[in-house]
Formats: sequence, C-alpha cells, structure tokens
Amino acid sequence: MLILMRRAMDARTKVRVVTSKTHTQPQKSPTTTSPSTTWVWTNPTSPISWISSNPKTKPSSPPPRRAFVIVRFQKQSHEITVDLSTRSIVSKNVYEGNGYPMLTFGEQTVASQLPFSYEPFKESLRKRGLNTSQVLCASFSIGWFGEAKTKRNVKVKCYYTNGTANLYARPLEGVAAVVDLDDMKIVGYNDRDVIPVPNAEGTEYRASKLKPPFGPKLKGIPVTQHCGPGFTVQGHSVSWGNWDFHVGFDIKAGPIISLASIYDLQKQKRRRVLYKGFISELFVPYQDPTEEWYYTTYFDSDGSPVKIPNAFCIFEKYAGDIMWRHTEISIPNQVITEVRSDVSLVVRIVSTVGNYDYVIDWEFKPSGSFKIGVGLTGILGLKAGAYTHTDEIKEDIYGTLIADNTIGVYRDHFFIYYLDLDIDGEVNSFVKSNLETVKVKDENIPRKSRWTVVSETAKTEADARINLGLKASELLVVNPNKRTKQGNKIGYRLLPGSVVHPLLLLNDYPQIRGAFTNYNVWVTPYNKSEKWAAGSYVDRSRGDDTIAVWSSRDREIEKKDIVLWYMMGFHHVPSQEDFPVMPTLSGGFELRPTNFFESNPVLKTKSPKPLQWPNCTSQH
Amino acid sequence: MLILMRRAMDARTKVRVVTSKTHTQPQKSPTTTSPSTTWVWTNPTSPISWISSNPKTKPSSPPPRRAFVIVRFQKQSHEITVDLSTRSIVSKNVYEGNGYPMLTFGEQTVASQLPFSYEPFKESLRKRGLNTSQVLCASFSIGWFGEAKTKRNVKVKCYYTNGTANLYARPLEGVAAVVDLDDMKIVGYNDRDVIPVPNAEGTEYRASKLKPPFGPKLKGIPVTQHCGPGFTVQGHSVSWGNWDFHVGFDIKAGPIISLASIYDLQKQKRRRVLYKGFISELFVPYQDPTEEWYYTTYFDSDGSPVKIPNAFCIFEKYAGDIMWRHTEISIPNQVITEVRSDVSLVVRIVSTVGNYDYVIDWEFKPSGSFKIGVGLTGILGLKAGAYTHTDEIKEDIYGTLIADNTIGVYRDHFFIYYLDLDIDGEVNSFVKSNLETVKVKDENIPRKSRWTVVSETAKTEADARINLGLKASELLVVNPNKRTKQGNKIGYRLLPGSVVHPLLLLNDYPQIRGAFTNYNVWVTPYNKSEKWAAGSYVDRSRGDDTIAVWSSRDREIEKKDIVLWYMMGFHHVPSQEDFPVMPTLSGGFELRPTNFFESNPVLKTKSPKPLQWPNCTSQH
Repeated sequence: MLILMRRAMDARTKVRVVTSKTHTQPQKSPTTTSPSTTWVWTNPTSPISWISSNPKTKPSSPPPRRAFVIVRFQKQSHEITVDLSTRSIVSKNVYEGNGYPMLTFGEQTVASQLPFSYEPFKESLRKRGLNTSQVLCASFSIGWFGEAKTKRNVKVKCYYTNGTANLYARPLEGVAAVVDLDDMKIVGYNDRDVIPVPNAEGTEYRASKLKPPFGPKLKGIPVTQHCGPGFTVQGHSVSWGNWDFHVGFDIKAGPIISLASIYDLQKQKRRRVLYKGFISELFVPYQDPTEEWYYTTYFDSDGSPVKIPNAFCIFEKYAGDIMWRHTEISIPNQVITEVRSDVSLVVRIVSTVGNYDYVIDWEFKPSGSFKIGVGLTGILGLKAGAYTHTDEIKEDIYGTLIADNTIGVYRDHFFIYYLDLDIDGEVNSFVKSNLETVKVKDENIPRKSRWTVVSETAKTEADARINLGLKASELLVVNPNKRTKQGNKIGYRLLPGSVVHPLLLLNDYPQIRGAFTNYNVWVTPYNKSEKWAAGSYVDRSRGDDTIAVWSSRDREIEKKDIVLWYMMGFHHVPSQEDFPVMPTLSGGFELRPTNFFESNPVLKTKSPKPLQWPNCTSQH
Repeated sequence: MLILMRRAMDARTKVRVVTSKTHTQPQKSPTTTSPSTTWVWTNPTSPISWISSNPKTKPSSPPPRRAFVIVRFQKQSHEITVDLSTRSIVSKNVYEGNGYPMLTFGEQTVASQLPFSYEPFKESLRKRGLNTSQVLCASFSIGWFGEAKTKRNVKVKCYYTNGTANLYARPLEGVAAVVDLDDMKIVGYNDRDVIPVPNAEGTEYRASKLKPPFGPKLKGIPVTQHCGPGFTVQGHSVSWGNWDFHVGFDIKAGPIISLASIYDLQKQKRRRVLYKGFISELFVPYQDPTEEWYYTTYFDSDGSPVKIPNAFCIFEKYAGDIMWRHTEISIPNQVITEVRSDVSLVVRIVSTVGNYDYVIDWEFKPSGSFKIGVGLTGILGLKAGAYTHTDEIKEDIYGTLIADNTIGVYRDHFFIYYLDLDIDGEVNSFVKSNLETVKVKDENIPRKSRWTVVSETAKTEADARINLGLKASELLVVNPNKRTKQGNKIGYRLLPGSVVHPLLLLNDYPQIRGAFTNYNVWVTPYNKSEKWAAGSYVDRSRGDDTIAVWSSRDREIEKKDIVLWYMMGFHHVPSQEDFPVMPTLSGGFELRPTNFFESNPVLKTKSPKPLQWPNCTSQH
C-alpha cells in the first residue's frame, strides 16, 4: 500500500495534486498489457479506543491495519480486504452490482493513445489539416442513460496545442471515439462535422509566454514565520493552538480530517468535535444536450494510487481579521479598547482534475469554529463553435460565447461533505431550531409580532433532509447527554454559505445518479459502508447506491453516532473573464460552537506579539 | 463644517470610531443649556464632469461646495443648505413631516444624567442597595407604535459597573425613565420589579483584568510592508493596483466609497464602476415583547459631527488566497504550474455603537471584484432575569440564558447598502438572468433535462424587488449601450452571501419603519433625495419615507442612472460563546465583473515577489 500523505513541514508551500484525466502524447505506442484497476482504502478500526488515555479502556494492541482493495481483472470487479501487517487476504468477493470502479491513470493513458493508430481518426486530422504531433487526447466517463446493459466504455476527445499550452481552449469539436476499457479498443467513432478549432491567440496563460504590458503591479508583502510555524506535525497529526487533528489523504476523497478535538481552557480538558470529514462526492453536470456533450456529467475525480510529495499546504493565516473587539468610552475618565487578532490554521490541497483546479481548504479557528472552503479556478471545459459574435447566434448555444469560436458551456459544480461530527462524544442528535413568527396578543404591548426559536430534534432521516433557503432555521448537531452549566444543549451549528439547488429533473439520469444534490443537508446514522454519496462504483452507476437510497430507509438518528452531509455548489454561467484561465470563485460554510463552551473560548486569547521588520535601509 | 475623514496613511492601524449612544457619569451635574441638533451632509454636485479629463466637457470652476444641515431648535427641525465657500445660506425650510433628526452626542449625554437628580430613581438605587457612583445610564430611541402624536422622547436605562468594565452585562432590569429631549426633562418613570443585577464575575474582557491561564497561545506572524504600502492616498483619493476611488465619511452612513474606477489593461483606459456606495440604514429589532424591550428596534447609529483621527484603516490583505492557478501535466515532457497570489486592498472602519462593534470592510481585488463585509462583535445587549439554569424556566424568556441571570435576547441585524453603480458609464440597466430548467424533447438525446439562462431586463421598480433564495438567478447591472467584442452585455454581477428575510409581520410598526428589509434587492432610479432607506428623519419615523414607499411609485429603471440596494442581515440567537464579549460573526457579498472585461483582467498580473525575512539568529 502506498502512503499518499507526507509530513507537511513547510508552511505556505503550495503544491499540486493531480488525480486527473490523463492526456497522452501520440508518439508513444499504446501499451498492450491488460490493465487492472486497484483502489485502496485504509480501514482504521476504532481509533477512539486506541487513542484513549484511559488504561482501562485502551486495548493492549493497536487496531488491525487493513486495506480495502478493488481490482478490475478479466472484466470483473474484485473486492478484497487485505491485512497489511500479516500481508494476507482477509476476505474476497466479486462485485455483481451496477457501475464500475474508478478509471486508473494507466488505463486512461492507454485509451487516449488508441485514436492515433486508428485510421478514421487519422483521416479526421488530415481532413482538418492538423499536425498530428500537436494533437492530445483525453478520456471521459459517459455516465448512464437508462441502458439495460452497459460496458466499461469511455469517450476519447482530442485537443490541439499548436502554439499554446492551453489545449482545452482548442477542442476538436465533433470528433469522439468510444473505447471499451476492458478490451482496450475503439468500439465506436464519430466525426460529426468540421467545426473550426479556435485560434491559439489569446489562450496562453504562462507568464513566460505573455507579452507586455503586465499589470496591475502589486507590491510584495512578507508574510513569513522567521522562527518557524506555530503548528507542529507529528506523523499525520497536527497540533495548533487549542486544536489537534489528523490529516489523511484518499485518492477519491482528497484530504481527510479526522479526530479533531479542541482544548477547553475553562474545563481544562480536550473535547472531541469531528470524528472524520471529507468531500464524499463531486458532480459536475454540463447543460449542453448535443451528442458530444449530453453525457458530460462528471462525478468525483478519477485516478489511481500514486505517491505525491508535498500534497498538503498547511499554513497559519493572518488576514487582518478581528477575532473580537470592543471599545468602551462610557466609563468616566477611561477609554477601553480591546482587540484580538484573528489567526487561523489552514489545511489546503489543490486538486487539478484535467482542466479544473479545485482549491480545498479546511480552516480552524481558536474560537472553535472551522470553515470549509472550495475555490474554483483553472481552465473551463470549452466547446468550439462557428460563432465569433452573439449577433450571429440564432439558436441556443447552451453557454456563453467567451472568445472567438469558443463557448463556455453552462455547468454546475456540486460538492457533498461527509461530516461525522462527534460533539463532545459519539452520541449526538440533529436539531432544527426554527425561527418562527409569533403574533403578540397582549393588548398592553404595542408591538404586533416577534420571532422565537422552536427547536425540533430529528427522529429519523426524513426529518433531516433539508433544502436550505425556504425558512429561517439554525441547524445544530448537539450532544443530548450533556448540557452546559446554564442547561443549554452542547452543540455545533452549521452556517451555510450561498445555497444552491439542482435544476435537472429529478427523474433525469444524471440527477438519479447525483441524487445527493436533492437536498442541501442530510443526516444518516453512521454506517461503515456509507462513505460515497453517489455510491462506491460511480462509473456508469445507476443511482442505486446513493445517499438518497440509504436515507429512504428512514432510520433513527436521534441519540446516535450520526453523520451530517452538507451539499454546496455553484451554478456556473461562464463569462469572458473566465477565459483563458478563470479567476478563483469561492464558496464554503462554517461549523461554529454553539453552547459548546460555557463562555467565549477566546476571551483569554492574546493577540500574537507584533513582530517588526528590521530597518528597511539595513536590508537593501 | 467639520471634515470627518483624515488621510489614512498607515497600513494596518486599527482605530475606533464612536458614533454612539452616550453613557455618562453620575457625578457630573447635567448641563442645562438647550441643546440643538445639527446634522451635516455635504452635497457634491456633479463631480463626474469636474474630474473629466476632456477639456471640452470640464467646467471651468469646481462644483459649488454646499452642505445640508438639520438644526433642531425650539422644537422645530430646520433644514438649511449652506454654501461653504461664500459662508451663506442658500435655502431654509422647517420640516413638518413625521420623525425627528438624529440624536446628538451632547443631548444624549445630558439625558443620561437626568436620573441621577431624579428622586424616584435615587430611591430605586437605594432599594437595590446599589452604589450610585457605579451606576451608568444610556439613552435609547423608542420607535413608533401607531401613536397619533409623538414627542421627541427617549428612554434612559441604567447599568452597574461595580467590579467590571462590562456595564452591559449588569443591567438594572425593570427600571426606565422617559426623557423629553426637546424639554430635556424626565416625563415618565417606571420601576417595575426588582430583578437581580447579574454578578460582575465572568463579565470582564480586559486582558489586564483577567486571571491566568491565558490561551490558546498563538505565534506571531509578521505582516509588514517594510518599504511602505502599495497604495497611495492623496486627499480623499486612494490608488492601488488598477483601482482608483475616493473615501469619504458621513456620520450616519459611516464610510462612503465613491468614484471607483478600474484601469483596463487591455483597453488601456480607466473605466467607471461605482459612483457611490455606503450603508444606508441599519435595523436591529429585538424580539422581546415585554415593557422595557418591545421598542428596542434600533435604526442606524446615533451621533453628531465630531473630528475623529485615524477613523479609517486601509491595508493590503494577503491571506494566502489564490487569484488563479493551473497545473498542466498532459503535454509531453512538461509540467506547467502557474499560480498568482491574491492580494486585495481593504478599507475598514469599526463603528462602535454603544455595546456593539461593527467591522465594516470594502475589499477591492485586482480582478475587478469588490467584496463588502460586515463583522459583528463587541458586547450583546443583555437582559437581566431571575434564572440561572434552563430547567427553572417555565415561560418564554425571548432569548438564550447565556450566563447566570443573563439573557441574550433574540435579535436581528439588517443592513442595506446603497450602491450607485455606474458600469462603464451612467446609463445602466438591471438584468435578472434566470436559470430555468428545460425539458429535452429530442428523442435522439438520452438526457431528459438541462438548464438555460433566460435574461430579463427590469423595466420598472416592481421588476427589481427581489427576495433571494426562491429561485436560481444571476443579478446583473449592465451597460445597455456597450457590448464586448463578442457581443455580450458589459456588466457586474451581484453575488449574495447568506440570505436573510425579516420575520416580523409586515403590518407591525417596526417592520413598517424598517420596510427596506421586505426585499433583499431593490433598484431605484437615481434620486438625490433618496439616500436613506428608512427615511431622513428616522427617530420616531412612521415609515412614510422608506424605500418601500419610493419603490411603490414603480418608476422606470431601464437605461437610466440606477441605484442597486442590497439588504443583508443576521438572525441572532445568542449562545454562551457570545458572552462576555462576542467572537466576530461575519457576512457579506461580492460584486464581480461579468463580461465587463474582454478576458481575464488578471491574466497578466504577476504575483508580488517573495520578500524574505533575514536570518532569524541575527535578529535575536
């Protein structure tokens, strides 16, 4: 097994992680060996008891180190549990359900090379007068649209680089090969129409290839921890301020934060907050119904295990924000000004999925809040078209004309976060605190209305399927067995960011497969097998293993180990500013302690001492 | 006239602005002179022509410098326009409508002193055994609840400091005096009940008064521009990167950003974005209907002109964010990684309104986006009560028991921003781009649905009254007379943050007065007199001069100089973490260029050069 995470020692070292569709060069001859797909998922059993400091409950030996492996071999998907310490197979099974395992880097590479030895494709290039050595191809999953039987097929589409590094800006529109991955051969081919390949001009984004003038010029600001960072990393464990947590990596999920706990200064003890959190699924449906685009409804990132150095960027963020402050001038002969600087710790990974770059942040605050952010940048998936001006367009082009012959197709980006909160312990409940208008009936009161909080504890999964934005409510995960000194329920509150709902019909195939977007919030009882909101075998899946299916069992979720699922997203109508590379568009949400602490947990936090830059002249 | 703004020369100098309810010490004898209220609003006429670089359109002399002054004198509100250069009165008028001008600092000070020479109040203190020298009082506006006739009255409520600087945590609940400000005397008094004054213990927030342990300890991060900031300030004008704008201050609005324009590197010209923007109104209704709280529905900040040094904090923010990035590994023998650091310029003011501190940010980005943020911190308005544990509570307490005998009353914070956008010129239109589901009818396409964009230009004000969250749409202000090379409408898009709607009944008096909260978005044609969304005379106003009234005229707004109004807010259910001082709760929204530029305007922006801290050992 490969360990995919490395000690993140350097603050502010930005690195890339590529878990990506693969693009290959035509010169290399296709590999002919039969590819096998492996997918590794470590399975830590009960770390809670193992990290316990209580010698009575702590087991004498660590939990078994096991890995769950999916191997695609001879057209079958084998599920194997391996014991890593004894190097033995614990169990094995052939998966008979719908869908296929993730596409590996290797097999995508081979598939993308096939067109270059395929005569009709060569003819397509000749017909367009393209230089073969400047053509690159990539493979794309094709989804499921009601077919009774499916094969493990992908489509291969191609791009022209000639004069630019921005291949995505120069698609060979209308040309697509269908590749059977199990047989590793082209089983279909289409050259629908000769559509102009957009020009290379204006597509370049490398500073070294751009011409002056450059600008606007920004002055440097040194943000350096000259005596080292304020956090420590030991193995996979990160400690910073009052926070302790574990950072892991999974090829499908990306970063995994687990065993996050916070030290309560008042109670003088460490308290559990998050057992495990990660992005469970990603769904990017494009809104173009034409032949080469209708199936473009990506799920997750594809890839296979590979060792990635410097995959994480961990840094302390001091953005000039204020943790808390107050000025008081009402007390005679006194002016009180108390301000505390807001410093936070960010765990970042950048996941480049072909053309797109997703910036994924987990930000921890000394106040006990943690914020989860996603930034979208990189290059849009672009479609070539005949138009150079909107006045020429007489039909629906399913997108925005963002450059000559270049259409930014409408698309969504949906993310669903798996958040197994353990608020001060494993047994939790989900509470909807609805803010409801109350008519004031007392005739002595001149006011006619007010609002109050009506709290409702979700009993079953149906109570916790929520579309946000319809009514005012605060959503909390509480520990029903513990209360504050004042008697309030100990909890954490979800503060949503911008709210997005899906726009596809509920019975449309992509929506059935991406049914996790049907609600913004779901709560399920913890179940070891329910990790992936669109199922474990997403490629060509049929939506029979999604959170919508699990949740329809309507299990009890009160006073249980529960998982909160939060779905966020973006509807993306591209604009010209998104070309040739897109300025980051950000979104996110926050989890904030709410009657978790007895009082403000950062009341006694002092601002870091100001550090002075030495006299300017002595340095230059 | 006082100039309320000072050159903001120092980056990262955080300063306070107090435009506040006044609290006075009892020892000082009340001033007996009759107070007069003045409110000054400068009235710049047509700066656009004056700043024009075209000698044909530029007037030969600057626009007249005039000020609009409201003077409360002998129970009348006088409106006077003064010419500042000739020191003469241009016009005068006695205001006969509903409502009164802002309360001044001076008259609030006097009003708050009155109880100390009022025998029933002295008796109330004796009855409670309180030390008079430790009692402080403050005045509060009382709103309007349908009374046919009103006087210019306020309520005075008091606090006990004895042992703490946190007076707000120790209210003398149930005691209130009514003061007629025009006569400056107590005209009503109530001592309803002896409710325990909460203890001083646990209320202190000054670091110098708190006992160890302190924590969590945070390590210092130097963020210093050792060779000076990257922006320049000349008079009231700020230049930074590609942005130019003017910073002003108004006692009612706080910071005013005007004449904001951005340099377009591609077109090599400066382009207008925002003519003027500011917070037009603030509305903070509390949700406790009892006698001393039902009227607690604050509007705006109270105050009077005063010279404030260092009112603004202007700084460059480098938070570790990414302006744009892409990694490319698909081109043979190449790994491309291009990343640009996101640096922005923040204009901040902190407005301390009695107990609350509002952190108001305008953040400008080189990409042309600007973000507007509000942070809530400071001390909650607290109510004393008999309870120390929620189990004792058998009635609605209209809030959260957040400490012994201390209730954090439910409340809202609503803000409405006045945004006179001038997108590439004065004539603009407001466009709703609705994202609508379309059924796919073509039988050859296996997909059943997609979404598309249906754009609708608002003709009149009714078309532009929008409650967000009900449907997916992008809201844009566009220049209908200009298009990009590709033919798209040149515009800026509103990206809302968390969306909040009011919960009071529409016919309730506070809601009638605060009717600007009825919608999240309003658009009006520019009208010089429509600056204040709850009217110019807010104290005891009756809602007859709100944006809801103006907008009901349903004027044309297409191809006009229009004002976009954005209402944001927070429903606040206090939690124990908010005591004794509240960790900042933040919200905001963004305006983002959308087909304003021909392509990514920061494509050719280079990251600032990394600046190195010298060797650690040589400094210590």
